[in-house]
Amino acid sequence: MPDQKFSCKQSLIARYRQYLPVDDSTPIVSLGEGNTPLVRSFNLPHLLGAPHLQLYFKLEGLNPTGSFKDRGMTMAISKALQAGSEAVICASTGNTSASAAAFAARAGMSCFVVLPAGKVALGKLSQAVLYGARVMVIEGNFDQALQLVKQVATNNGLTIVNSINPYRLEGQKTAAFEVTEQLGEAPDYLCIPVGNAGNISAYYRGFKEGYQHKLNTVIPVMCGFQAAGAAPFVCGQPVEKPETLATAIRIGNPASWHEAIKATSESGGFFDAVTDDEILAAYKMLAAQEGIFCEPSSAASFAGLIKSLQTKRIPHTAKVVCVLTGNGLKDPDTGLAAANVDLTPIAATESALLNAMLPPSF
Amino acid sequence: MPDQKFSCKQSLIARYRQYLPVDDSTPIVSLGEGNTPLVRSFNLPHLLGAPHLQLYFKLEGLNPTGSFKDRGMTMAISKALQAGSEAVICASTGNTSASAAAFAARAGMSCFVVLPAGKVALGKLSQAVLYGARVMVIEGNFDQALQLVKQVATNNGLTIVNSINPYRLEGQKTAAFEVTEQLGEAPDYLCIPVGNAGNISAYYRGFKEGYQHKLNTVIPVMCGFQAAGAAPFVCGQPVEKPETLATAIRIGNPASWHEAIKATSESGGFFDAVTDDEILAAYKMLAAQEGIFCEPSSAASFAGLIKSLQTKRIPHTAKVVCVLTGNGLKDPDTGLAAANVDLTPIAATESALLNAMLPPSF
Repeated sequence: MPDQKFSCKQSLIARYRQYLPVDDSTPIVSLGEGNTPLVRSFNLPHLLGAPHLQLYFKLEGLNPTGSFKDRGMTMAISKALQAGSEAVICASTGNTSASAAAFAARAGMSCFVVLPAGKVALGKLSQAVLYGARVMVIEGNFDQALQLVKQVATNNGLTIVNSINPYRLEGQKTAAFEVTEQLGEAPDYLCIPVGNAGNISAYYRGFKEGYQHKLNTVIPVMCGFQAAGAAPFVCGQPVEKPETLATAIRIGNPASWHEAIKATSESGGFFDAVTDDEILAAYKMLAAQEGIFCEPSSAASFAGLIKSLQTKRIPHTAKVVCVLTGNGLKDPDTGLAAANVDLTPIAATESALLNAMLPPSF
Repeated sequence: MPDQKFSCKQSLIARYRQYLPVDDSTPIVSLGEGNTPLVRSFNLPHLLGAPHLQLYFKLEGLNPTGSFKDRGMTMAISKALQAGSEAVICASTGNTSASAAAFAARAGMSCFVVLPAGKVALGKLSQAVLYGARVMVIEGNFDQALQLVKQVATNNGLTIVNSINPYRLEGQKTAAFEVTEQLGEAPDYLCIPVGNAGNISAYYRGFKEGYQHKLNTVIPVMCGFQAAGAAPFVCGQPVEKPETLATAIRIGNPASWHEAIKATSESGGFFDAVTDDEILAAYKMLAAQEGIFCEPSSAASFAGLIKSLQTKRIPHTAKVVCVLTGNGLKDPDTGLAAANVDLTPIAATESALLNAMLPPSF
């Protein structure tokens, strides 16, 4: 056994090692990722007019860095360490860079994050910066940043941890195993946001492997939801200038194109698009009606379910899991901008307070 | 059995019901709280010059609303629902209001949050607002807000969910049971941030009850750490104007005074103060060296440990758990303000990038 000094009792790799490409000499780099709650919703089916819907949410935002990316990153960084790599590199403005930086810090490796100029919001980078990553901005667009990252990695012995790293999807597929464990069986339908399309591919892989290993006896219908302004799978071709407030899925040319198409077609599923307004409405409904706060992008799965119930593409009696990919705390401003709060002070008396507590319609 | 429609398979109350004041008619309101990772640190003991220290971090920020408050709130809201209450109320600007609002939404109850005028940062309230709480600002200070909340609750049949609610500490004590389970035994020392002092009281209660039930055979030395500008336990008396950047522990007159004193004195422990600079240094070290991102206030536990290792108040060979009470995403600005990032674009060439990747000292 290798020195397991980067590990943790609750490590995802330890739990699922028989299904993962690790061996006895793989050092496990863990921050306690995975094992996230699957929460059943009882309020929302009634509100949606589908009281017999069996609806569950997979809270991936409760991973250590606040997103599902940690499942893939524990694998990618563990394998990089096993291979003797001393540094990792990625092109990312969001959840990938946060996760890469955290696991690299844990493993004592350097992490480099390369970004295109112009679209850099420092707030989105706060995690990567605090985890000690070196953040660099280049004159060019995202595709050029990714191209440069590949080139630098190949020529200089760094490990690239963007989604082209094959271990990322291997780690991510464990979410399917967990859903099956938590439900006692795979659900009828899986609703999931689709950006780069790695996650829908990973879940499908996980459910198929689970089926082979007799963990689940059904394979869910895979339903992938994109933002209307960034919906290449719905258009059938890459989108040149993707635009949506759901920044985590603002991707015009998905990396996992073929595997994602296979996931929906083989499972009898589909891709569909939801507007930014539908995403925001779903996002607010989740928080206010069920106490679940996710990233706006994550709510694309629930927005897609709402639409699919209306069009009867998903039956009202189905057992459905909606994947919520990231924590709402990653992007609180979007929601606050949509909220209407009156912070005008009132007198510190019981009668003034009771008056203010009455519903606005009174 | 009552209708368990607000529950969740992974509910904290279901796991520990034999130790909690619930019965068969208690509806369980759950969002999948508790069951948070305990992560061993290997990098930090070496950096601190204490290589034989057995150091663990309890990541309470991975609770559903991002803080340990969810442990107490699942109890408080479940019991309020059992008692027939239709609304809850609290005076809080931070983690308590977020947690109360989320669990109230889940239970279909109204939630009212009362705040003193002047010190209201909308960002800190984003969660409560999105979870659907009614936020009201009164002309007065925090003590007046709390007094008014008590009065309104008593006279109008609302349930108060500030820490004077006795069920809060009952839920919070389960963290001690979990630590014991995860370690196989209670640690030698528990380091914890102290503000209102409910959490140190709850952990001590949990370890004592665990000892009675033979879950643990030792009781940890309880070490409570306060911010130097808000350290009533170190001063031995309330602090009139508490000041610290660690807002979650900026409290001058703790509610759980006597129980917290008992926790430290009975266990052979102590209170100590750490400066804001020490808290920030610990906060940054946790993220950059171990990949763990917590609220600045949470890092008071680790800052206290660092100080106690230097003064030998905690031996270098001890088994220590530091509680990290909240998620770093709750307050990313504090850290970013302390970080030094250069976002000047560089040319999109391999040589320019490699040059930028060199350590600053080269």
